[in-house]
Order: sequence, then C-alpha cells, then structure tokens
Amino acid sequence: MPTPSQTFVLKFSCPDRAGIVAAVSTFLYEQGCNILEAQQFDDTESNRFFMRVAFNVIEGTADLPRIRTAFGPVADGFKLDWSMRDPAEKRRVLLLVSKFDHCLADLLYRWRIGEIPMEITGIISNHPIETYAHLDFDGIPFHHLPVSKATKMEQEAQVWRIFQESGSEMAVLARYMQVLSDGLSAKLSGRCINIHHSFLPGFKGAKPYHQAHQRGVKLIGATAHYVTSDLDEGPIIEQDVERITHQDSPDDLVRKGRDIERRVLARALAWHLQDRVIPNGHKTIVFRD
Amino acid sequence: MPTPSQTFVLKFSCPDRAGIVAAVSTFLYEQGCNILEAQQFDDTESNRFFMRVAFNVIEGTADLPRIRTAFGPVADGFKLDWSMRDPAEKRRVLLLVSKFDHCLADLLYRWRIGEIPMEITGIISNHPIETYAHLDFDGIPFHHLPVSKATKMEQEAQVWRIFQESGSEMAVLARYMQVLSDGLSAKLSGRCINIHHSFLPGFKGAKPYHQAHQRGVKLIGATAHYVTSDLDEGPIIEQDVERITHQDSPDDLVRKGRDIERRVLARALAWHLQDRVIPNGHKTIVFRD
Amino acid sequence: MPTPSQTFVLKFSCPDRAGIVAAVSTFLYEQGCNILEAQQFDDTESNRFFMRVAFNVIEGTADLPRIRTAFGPVADGFKLDWSMRDPAEKRRVLLLVSKFDHCLADLLYRWRIGEIPMEITGIISNHPIETYAHLDFDGIPFHHLPVSKATKMEQEAQVWRIFQESGSEMAVLARYMQVLSDGLSAKLSGRCINIHHSFLPGFKGAKPYHQAHQRGVKLIGATAHYVTSDLDEGPIIEQDVERITHQDSPDDLVRKGRDIERRVLARALAWHLQDRVIPNGHKTIVFRD
Amino acid sequence: MPTPSQTFVLKFSCPDRAGIVAAVSTFLYEQGCNILEAQQFDDTESNRFFMRVAFNVIEGTADLPRIRTAFGPVADGFKLDWSMRDPAEKRRVLLLVSKFDHCLADLLYRWRIGEIPMEITGIISNHPIETYAHLDFDGIPFHHLPVSKATKMEQEAQVWRIFQESGSEMAVLARYMQVLSDGLSAKLSGRCINIHHSFLPGFKGAKPYHQAHQRGVKLIGATAHYVTSDLDEGPIIEQDVERITHQDSPDDLVRKGRDIERRVLARALAWHLQDRVIPNGHKTIVFRD
Repeated sequence: MPTPSQTFVLKFSCPDRAGIVAAVSTFLYEQGCNILEAQQFDDTESNRFFMRVAFNVIEGTADLPRIRTAFGPVADGFKLDWSMRDPAEKRRVLLLVSKFDHCLADLLYRWRIGEIPMEITGIISNHPIETYAHLDFDGIPFHHLPVSKATKMEQEAQVWRIFQESGSEMAVLARYMQVLSDGLSAKLSGRCINIHHSFLPGFKGAKPYHQAHQRGVKLIGATAHYVTSDLDEGPIIEQDVERITHQDSPDDLVRKGRDIERRVLARALAWHLQDRVIPNGHKTIVFRD
Repeated sequence: MPTPSQTFVLKFSCPDRAGIVAAVSTFLYEQGCNILEAQQFDDTESNRFFMRVAFNVIEGTADLPRIRTAFGPVADGFKLDWSMRDPAEKRRVLLLVSKFDHCLADLLYRWRIGEIPMEITGIISNHPIETYAHLDFDGIPFHHLPVSKATKMEQEAQVWRIFQESGSEMAVLARYMQVLSDGLSAKLSGRCINIHHSFLPGFKGAKPYHQAHQRGVKLIGATAHYVTSDLDEGPIIEQDVERITHQDSPDDLVRKGRDIERRVLARALAWHLQDRVIPNGHKTIVFRD
Repeated sequence: MPTPSQTFVLKFSCPDRAGIVAAVSTFLYEQGCNILEAQQFDDTESNRFFMRVAFNVIEGTADLPRIRTAFGPVADGFKLDWSMRDPAEKRRVLLLVSKFDHCLADLLYRWRIGEIPMEITGIISNHPIETYAHLDFDGIPFHHLPVSKATKMEQEAQVWRIFQESGSEMAVLARYMQVLSDGLSAKLSGRCINIHHSFLPGFKGAKPYHQAHQRGVKLIGATAHYVTSDLDEGPIIEQDVERITHQDSPDDLVRKGRDIERRVLARALAWHLQDRVIPNGHKTIVFRD
Repeated sequence: MPTPSQTFVLKFSCPDRAGIVAAVSTFLYEQGCNILEAQQFDDTESNRFFMRVAFNVIEGTADLPRIRTAFGPVADGFKLDWSMRDPAEKRRVLLLVSKFDHCLADLLYRWRIGEIPMEITGIISNHPIETYAHLDFDGIPFHHLPVSKATKMEQEAQVWRIFQESGSEMAVLARYMQVLSDGLSAKLSGRCINIHHSFLPGFKGAKPYHQAHQRGVKLIGATAHYVTSDLDEGPIIEQDVERITHQDSPDDLVRKGRDIERRVLARALAWHLQDRVIPNGHKTIVFRD
C-alpha cells in the first residue's frame, strides 16, 4: 500500500492550445490523484506551453507505471514532450572535475545529506586522485583521464564510454576546465550542466575573473547552463552575483567567486533533477524551488 | 468583439480536496477560455488550496459577468472564496500619508505611468497640503485631517467616511505615522496595506531605524503588510533589505531606508491589485510577478 | 566662527611611495583638523595611491581657502592630483533626458529633499517640456533641443554652450537616449555620468532589455559609468541587479529595470558629488557611502 | 631578509582626539613602512576612534617584535587598545559543533585551501566522532563531550580546560546547539563567535526557522556574533539573507538556511582573524574585505 505522501512529478511542454490544463488535471483526478503544487507558463513567443505538476495518489494504488501508461493517449493528443517520475528513483549523474574541487566538495556534501537527489555514477578528472585526498569519495568510481591537445579525441571517447557503461543519465561539469568538443557536446545535449565563473554573457571564455578585474565591474557572478557546442552560449538555468570592490585583486575574485559558483551549480543541478527546468529553445523555463 | 488579448484573472482559496484544478480548468475550457499563466499552492498545514489563473477568451464573447455567473455553481461546489476580475477595471484606492512623502511621490509616479493599476480616490494627511507643494496631485481630492490624542476618534471617523463616500476598495498607509485604532483596523481588515520601516519582526514600534542603529545590525529592511489590530503583526506581503555599515548614523539609515520602503510598498500594492496576494490566516500566499 | 561640525573633504590620487599618509595627516593635525573618516587604497597594478579624508577644524579658523593654500606644497611634494572641498558648496549639474523620465523624476525628488547635494543648472531634452508636465521643475531652465542625424553636430554645440554658459561642472545622462559624439564625450571627460540599462559588459548598445530577454538571463541590471568616446566602455561607478524569471516579457524587464536604473544612477551621482569616486585609468576607486 | 611583500596588520581603538592618524602614520613612515590599505572610523557616539592599517616594510628589517616595541610609547600616548600582527602567524582556533555539520565541513574546507588563516586546535562535539565519518579531520584532536542538564557544569569545565591546554585563542560555535553558561561566556568574551540561524533580532531562541515559517516572513537570514552571557544579544559581526516563499516548509527553510549560515560564519571568522573586526560596546566595527 502506498503512503498518501508518495509524490510524483509530471513535467511537460507542448504546442499551446486551449484545454491542456483541463485535460491533464481531469486525468489526474480520475486516476485518484491530488495536485499538491503546479506551475504553468504559456510562452507567446514560441507558442509553447510548459507545466510542472507535483501530485500524490489518494485513492487506489500509487502504481506509477500504470498511471504513465494511462497518460499516454492524453499526452499524444496534445503532443506533449513529457516525463512522469517518482522522485525516490534517483537519477544517475556523472561528475567531471579539474584541479579546483570546491564545487565537487560541495556537491558531494549535499548529496550525502540528501539535499541533491542523485546517484553519482563516477567522478572523472584530468588530475590524479591524490588531488582530492581530503574528499571522501565513498566508493564512487574515480577515473583519471589526463588530456592533451593530441589525446583529446581519445579522452572524450573514454568519457563517453564511461557515461554509457555507468548508465549515467546526465553529466555535470563541476569546474571541469576542458572545453568539450562539438561531438561530445551534441551527444550530451540537454543532459550536461556546466558552471561558468562569470555572469554571462559578460566575460565569456578563459579567465573570466581576470577579465572582470580588468573591466572594473562592481559585481561578479556565476552562471549554470546546459552545455551546447556553442561555448558559453547554452541555455542558462541559474545565475547569481556578489558585490566586489576596487580592492579586490583577481585572486580575491577567484576566492569570492567560489561561493557563488558552488551555490549556483547546486541549485541548477537540484532543480534539473527535480524536473523544475524545461528547455525552451536556447532559453529555459525554471519553476524555482 | 473582444480582442483575444483581453485577460481576466481568477483567484481563489478553498478547503483542499481532489479535483479542484480539474473542475476549474475544465470550466474555463468549456467557456472558450485559454489559460495563460497559473499557479497553485496546497497548504498542508491549513489544509487549504490556493490558485491564481490568468486566462483569455479565444472562442465566443469575452463577457465577464456571464462567465462569473456560470462559474457560481463550480465555486459553490468546492466552497471557493473567489474573485474573477478584469484588470482593466481599476480598483479604487485611498492613500494616507504623513510628513515624509517619498512613498507617496513614488506611488503617484508609478500610477501615472500605468505601472500600478488603480484609481486614487483621495489623499489623506495629518499635514497640510503645502507639505506636498512639489507633488502634482492632478485633481485627486486632498483631505487635511490633523489628529491629536483628543481628536483621534473623530479624525478616524472622518477617514472612514471618506473611505466609504469615495467608494474606496482599499487603503494604503504610505508612511502614515499614526497607529490606527482597533476599530478602524477591523473595518479595513484585508483592505489596508501598511509599510513598516524595519525588517519585521525585528524593531517593531517607533523609530525602527534608531533601534537598528542601536542594535548594530548589518542589514536594514522594510516590510509591507496588511493592517490588523495587532500592531506590526499583520500578514506580511513583501520585505526587502539593504546592507549597511558601522559608519551609518540613524539619519543615514533613514535615508537608505527610503529606497527600500518605496519599492517594497509599491510591489506589495501592485501584487495586491493584480490579485497575486491571498491571505492565509496570519500569513499570505504571494504568487509573485 | 565655524561650528566644529563643519566638515571638509580631501580627495587625491598620486604615485605610490612611503610617507603619504604621514605627510597628509600631519599636515591636517598641524592645521588644527581632526580626521573623521578616511579610506586609502594602494593599487599595486597602477602603482598609484588613492585617499579620501573627511575632517573638521577643531582649533583655529575653518578657513578652507587658507588650508588649501597651505596644503599646496605638501600636494606638490607628493605629486597629488587633489581636491579639497566644502560639501556645503554644491556643485553645478546639468541634466540630460529623453522620453523616459523615471531617472529625472527620481533625481529631482532626491535633490529636493537634500539627498543629492547639487545645484541643477538646467535640463536638456530632445523632447518638448510637455513630456514632463507632471514634474515640478521649480524654475530650473529647460532646453528643448530636438536632434536628428542631420542636426546632431549643431545640437551638441548647443548642449556644450549651455553647459559652459550655465557654469556647469558636470553633466548627467539620465536616460538621455542619444549617443554623444566623440568630440562632446572628450570635452565632458570625467565630468559626465551615464546610466546604461544593462549589467555591463553584457548587452551593450541598443535595446539591452530585449537582448537580455533574448538571451534568457536570470538577473537584469544597470550600470552607471563615466562617459567616454568608447560607447558603454567608460569607467564603471556602480552596478546593481534584480532577479527575473522566464515569465518576464521585454516590457516587464523595462518596468523592473526602472527601479534598478534610478537607484544606481542616484548612488553614482551622489558618490561622485561627495568626492567618493576617483578615476583609475579605465576603472574607478569608489569609497562607498 | 624579509621580502618586501611581507604584510603586517595594525588594529586599534582609542579615545578620539586629533593627531592619532598623524602619529601612527608618521611612526610607520619612520620605521621604513609603507601603508598598503587603511580604514578609519570616528564614532561620535562613543567618542572612540578605530583604525586598521595593513603595511609592509620597505626599508630595513621587517622585524615585527622590534616594531611592536617601538610602537609602545605611541600607543600609550594615545591610550590605544591595539594589536600588531603578522598574518602568517596563524591564530589557534577551537571548533565546537553538534549534530549538523554543514558549518564544520565548510570551515574545514576553507581552512584546508588556505582561505581561512588559522590553526585548528581541536573539535569538540556533544556527539560521537562517527557522526562525522565523512569528514577528514586530518589529525585534528576530536573531543566527544556529551552533555546533559546534570553534567553541564562538568562538561563546560572540560571545554574550558581543552581551550586552555590547547593554547586556543578563540572558539567558534559552528552550530553548537548548547547554550553556554554565563561563566563560560564571560571567560570567552570577545574570543567566541556563534552562528545563529536567524536574522537577529528576529527569532531569538530555539527553532528560529520554525518561528520564521510561523510568522510568514519573506526572507530568512543568519547572524554571526560574539557570544555574551546575554543569549543572542552579542555584538553582531555579519548577517545575510535569502528570499523564501509561501511554499517553503520549515524543512525547506532549514535547507535553504544552511547556505546562509555557512557563508555568514565563514566571513565573520575570516574577518575576525584578519583583524577586520573591532568591538565597540555591544556593536562592532567591521572593515570589510
């Protein structure tokens, strides 16, 4: 018997037309479900409709596969691009990192205390495991994949193989300081989140904190976005900023930026995993937590 | 013929049970309406459900009275506490102010450029009109109602008479530095917004900036809330803060606070008028803009 | 007799070397002055030293011209680029504006209540005075200077003439939607503040809110900077941001941006007038209030 | 031979009178020192003067003990309450924690990468070491000191003994959920920083997130302050806030609050250790980084 508190999440986008909410909510009602929280958005530019519904089952069996099957015809009728998930079934996430491990350490901590619902399938780094001697990987497979200009193609092939063989559903570039090739970017499209250490579109490319210092801005920021083959141009999921002053050297910006980066990446990843983010062309719909 | 862009707003709260969203959205669909934006919230503590729907009419006549009448039985069935409005029908708002006019000046400016949709029915002050010589009242009736301990009851009776005779639907205490009596507070319950110049519940009562300076806090704030007979304890609609330093004197806090006060009050009022705020006991549901 | 509370402000930059603070503070001490507040910054990149000192005179006469004269040799010895002012002597400021008057209205309000210490020498607009019917110009000379591609040179000549004839010390582009020519920019160098409605360096040029909407950023901002001939590249004085969502249309961004623009411009202008801003190449030192 | 980049920090407060900055900066100049950064504040209420100077030695030997000795007469003349430190000489800090270890984990991470300059002398918890199985204590002595009403006095005696025997200069209550007795508070006066999980003075005492949820505030915060015997009333060093919504349950506030708590505590501790914080009665002067 399911507990009434078992919550499922339906997320979809579709071409806009009248009757979508009526059809979806009537379906849920007829399945014995109660809507706990719902958000909709009708984008009059792309003419698409976006919705996220959290619901529980109050009558009958909380049999997700059955509800999913029953929902098929409704979804087809409105041409939904949809998913219906049990948050308890954690998604499988592969982490990539380079020398700076503040985002990695932060994600591991949040994962450990249950704040980010995921199974970590592996950690890939172009630096050896000794780099992270003080982090407890807790049995998560670690892959040291050094990379150079000459070996980039082979290294990316390995990354992709590990992604597939580990059954990963998504990848997170947690300050992984390598630009992915167009090929790998395409393969991971919509399934790979990067943290860029600037408030995009300002300071794209390398050494953004040095660029920010050079320009003399009064706030610095970080941006979490989906990776696309167009560097630093992927759909933005989340951004945040902090105030700085003329006293801050580039090193100070790096230090102050760490706090922004880790919280922006953690939010973006958690929201993605909670089905709060829906791509909309080169932008995103984010039903914030 | 209505233009398809004419948007109406349905807002309600009700006891939670399954099927509400289905019933409401099916009703709207059958009336030829399309949902543009919707937000729901199920408060598991109060066991009440809250919803705001913006919709337009895409088939048939955008006849709001007819839709309202048709909605009656649905609303009754679910015991909705509801309103369905045409944002073009501006609500009638009475402003009260004392010596400091930064909130008043700001509300007038926003009203003038169409940012806050309201009709201002009057301005009441315990200071004479010369106090506001540089503000353009644009024909809005001004009422100078001085007040003293001895005359408070009579003065409040006048306020209430003006409120009623002007057909006002709500009152805004835009830095009106008089505490309303329990009686007047009760009469205006749910229809009167105040701006308090502190981040409540810190620094209730008089001279909050001096209290904040005394305590040595590092941020100051302002709070917009519905007026209740319990001073500074009404349901909070919006709050915001700014960073200060040890260098700031109480006068500096007063100056820096003005910016916070005016934007917090303007947001709270606009959201109220856009049916984005729903009381929930001594708290509020705010479907932010 | 001066009151002890009469405060003067010394501001300077100079090549860095040991002994500057000692020389300056010893000078002030010997003149019977007491330091109330002081901030220093040594830029190890430009090898320049920056200082702001607020002081009052506690012994002898608060005779600013005499103190200034006496300070000459000290200043020369350390090659100071300096000013020593009495804040009570308000600087003369010329305001330029186009159709949108939210920054103008805000500056007028702050000027009126004494928050921004300046004398407004005139208001120039490329729109007629009727545009601002609801603003009280209070006798400030208004100049309607329409501009077209063909007449730009002549119009700028008029702007410059008004600037000079009115004895203006600085100009403020309070949402003046015309790009100044290189010539006029050069003439006003270091004496002209602009408010750009984006978080620079993002979204330079025209229609920044539309660009921001297009890119899907999650925060929008505004930037106050000194005007240079390099469009949107002048030294940044102040920036701020607000969170937005996918629901915000370009019009919503314009609306939400108004609040950011006006407070960023007001802060930058006040700090400039309080001698809190010192240019440092294409950056600024800002000793914040 | 010292490198010219060796920086020392002088910090002091004293009764206000003219000539302090002149005397101090002249002293430094005569010692062959160069001022890199300095901040002053004259509190006209307490009539005390506060100053922080970072300087390096550019002529002669960077012999801190000698400079300190030489400074004695200057300090005595102006009745300075002062310290002059070499930031390379890290201060000894004792950490106290209870079950929730997010602040502890964060401080350990920042300490490890050199962001917070300290030597950790020990970790005291009322929970056993297994609670922190995933944290790498790196040889830092761990003390499990369970506490009950009956044993509180003995447990505090042990805390104090460890503090002294380990040569600790300060203590940090990193979410140590025990109220210190008046006695221990007094002993650690000015040397003990606590993180309170509310925006003080709002929601003092127990379960502040539940109180915040109950009151319906729209922002939550955290406060780092020096511990005094007056619970939650000690001098505030730093505060910060985050926006929340009606959707957030008390558990959500606890989760969102963790991020605020850890960054507020880390800032306050770093600033204290960098001699950026000077007590001023029941308030603090903070020369922010």
